[in-house]
Amino acid sequence: MAVRLSAPDPASIKPVPGVELGFAEAGIKRAGRRDLMLMRLARGSRVAGVFTQNSFAAAPVQVCREHLDSGEAIRALIVNAGNANCGTGDDGIAAALRSCEVAARLIGCSISQVLPFSTGVILEPLPVDKIEAALPQAFATLAADRWAAAAAAIMTTDTVAKATSRTIDIDGVTVTVTGIAKGVGMLQPNMATMLAYVATDALVDQVALQRMVREVADVSFNRVTVDGDTSTNDSFVLIATGKAAMPEIIGAEPARYLALKATIVEVAQQLAQAIARDGEGATKFITIAVNGASDEAEALRVARSIGNSPLVKTALFASDPNLGRLLMAIGNARVEELDTAKVDLYLSAGDDEVRVIEAGRRAASYREEDGARVMKPDEIVIRVELGRGTHGTVVWTCDFSYDYVKINAEYRT
Amino acid sequence: MAVRLSAPDPASIKPVPGVELGFAEAGIKRAGRRDLMLMRLARGSRVAGVFTQNSFAAAPVQVCREHLDSGEAIRALIVNAGNANCGTGDDGIAAALRSCEVAARLIGCSISQVLPFSTGVILEPLPVDKIEAALPQAFATLAADRWAAAAAAIMTTDTVAKATSRTIDIDGVTVTVTGIAKGVGMLQPNMATMLAYVATDALVDQVALQRMVREVADVSFNRVTVDGDTSTNDSFVLIATGKAAMPEIIGAEPARYLALKATIVEVAQQLAQAIARDGEGATKFITIAVNGASDEAEALRVARSIGNSPLVKTALFASDPNLGRLLMAIGNARVEELDTAKVDLYLSAGDDEVRVIEAGRRAASYREEDGARVMKPDEIVIRVELGRGTHGTVVWTCDFSYDYVKINAEYRT
Repeated sequence: MAVRLSAPDPASIKPVPGVELGFAEAGIKRAGRRDLMLMRLARGSRVAGVFTQNSFAAAPVQVCREHLDSGEAIRALIVNAGNANCGTGDDGIAAALRSCEVAARLIGCSISQVLPFSTGVILEPLPVDKIEAALPQAFATLAADRWAAAAAAIMTTDTVAKATSRTIDIDGVTVTVTGIAKGVGMLQPNMATMLAYVATDALVDQVALQRMVREVADVSFNRVTVDGDTSTNDSFVLIATGKAAMPEIIGAEPARYLALKATIVEVAQQLAQAIARDGEGATKFITIAVNGASDEAEALRVARSIGNSPLVKTALFASDPNLGRLLMAIGNARVEELDTAKVDLYLSAGDDEVRVIEAGRRAASYREEDGARVMKPDEIVIRVELGRGTHGTVVWTCDFSYDYVKINAEYRT
Repeated sequence: MAVRLSAPDPASIKPVPGVELGFAEAGIKRAGRRDLMLMRLARGSRVAGVFTQNSFAAAPVQVCREHLDSGEAIRALIVNAGNANCGTGDDGIAAALRSCEVAARLIGCSISQVLPFSTGVILEPLPVDKIEAALPQAFATLAADRWAAAAAAIMTTDTVAKATSRTIDIDGVTVTVTGIAKGVGMLQPNMATMLAYVATDALVDQVALQRMVREVADVSFNRVTVDGDTSTNDSFVLIATGKAAMPEIIGAEPARYLALKATIVEVAQQLAQAIARDGEGATKFITIAVNGASDEAEALRVARSIGNSPLVKTALFASDPNLGRLLMAIGNARVEELDTAKVDLYLSAGDDEVRVIEAGRRAASYREEDGARVMKPDEIVIRVELGRGTHGTVVWTCDFSYDYVKINAEYRT
């Protein structure tokens, strides 16, 4: 069902010096499926992360935050699918720590140098014995060139594995950036049930890396919405192994910082868009651009109001130019003193752009057949001009189909 | 599809002295269906209303606000289904005023004594010529005992007409309260695509009536959500004809004010619940009670976060006790410094109550078969205890089914 999205060619996903990946079939969700991933990082690697803002942050998220705050160098990440280890209280924390302990022993580091991640069903005890039993297998298979397999191992309801790579030349040194992610439900800013890991061999100062992970998330994963729900387990982790022979990138060196960040943003945006393309039941990939806002927060409110509206999304699914719903969604974004007579709205697919709303009302030139035509393709851009200022933003989403209901009504069965 | 909701017995819907209703087939949506209602109010009637907070308030809403603000006594209401007259600019205002003008001429009052209401498709010109042509027929059929027919005439995607009546004794005088409403999509606080009209023959001071309409809306129509979208045309109007032989109710008489208000709240809550029972594609009626909040606004945020979550609503549709989604929805309600270890959650159907979450985690006593059993009936109560304070609220909603998508994907066809 994914919209113009195919699994990455494993050959195109470049290893990142200093990162190795291994897998196991722990049998958490069902037998015979890789559902456990272990990532080992070389000594000297730096790691920064951003996590869900849901009050019910899952046990692994709580442990990640603590371990990152401890200041100890992270040496390993464990990711399991099939169980979110959320709503599990102290037992959940103990289970997450237990999995860290087993990984630490295998790798030869302390517990707080391991970050745990879980995705799957909430409110059920994590079968940590299964993880414990499977970790040695994951450890035994560690290898640098297994990013595509890693992308497959962390999938839940994803239909396509999500991975991408870029290289960039920084002062004559070639640096690699490779990332993987999983979606696909509960997708909304701050953040999605989304696990994303992006690694580079660049040498980056810890403070700069922490700043970068937030800045990258803000223009990539926090710009995706599938259903407006926010998961308890969302995590985006940025890793810099420092294996490239280059001077360290620190915050005070804007040119090199920005160059590296631009490449990481490319990787993160491609992954974020892949999540929307593979949204549960998605048949269309929708880009919502909002311009002319007083500030970016306002633009984002309007874009999300459109992107989260079930009425807009079902109309997109049906290719029905029931475009009043777009007007309704803009009007619901709590933009103070919005002068509706200044609002314009365009729909486009490729080069075909149709002006739908002009000065807050149906454009004189608008014909329903134009609306029907431009809504047919599987990639559509909705552009709103608010006429209030110079700020803007872009959000990616998908439509809302019978299959969204089907997938979510039958998720656990 | 409506959940335990049947059309009212016309005999049970009592006329309100001072209110007459008439209808016509204007042919706005399709031929052969009553889609125009005219309500005539006796001289001396007082009217107060609350309207959508959507920035794109429809033309009739703008005209209603002006006419109510003018201070002139309202003598008539016109309601059309099939076209929302929204996103129609100055032409839309002119069309709404034109319909008022025709009604005013028939009734013998000024234009600003008429309130216009529209519901239906947004962004298409109102065929005011059809309304103009049909109004004389509506005028010719004015009668006091036609509330049930009025409820049917204002329906759009409603499957069941919504009307109810109560009487109350105030100081020995029997007063009638009768109301009608329509839903059913775009239902969320402040307010829904919802038109609701409640009339009483009580004699109520204008200031007291204005206060009452807000207070009643807050505990009835603003407690319903179907899909979280807010329409451009929502209106709730409270009418007091003053025909009952009683001393005027003014704000300074709390006992009589509260007695009347309690009866009007009963009528409004029944109509509001009927809207959720008849939510688009609804197969279950869900009551969400949130207690132990620091203030009512906080309780409302939590209740709406649950009630608007597509993930929660699809799980309810499937009767799948995937109850982690409830935890997720609570966690997304932006409750500051929520101590999740104090959160309890119960599901119940009738007398069968199951504790699902205890102290922020799965209750020790919880068994999946209990969850499955309590989720099967078509009326379910979700009760959340936040453990923060003494405030609480209740919200009514419905589940999210294939038919929601179907109805909204095919609405216009």
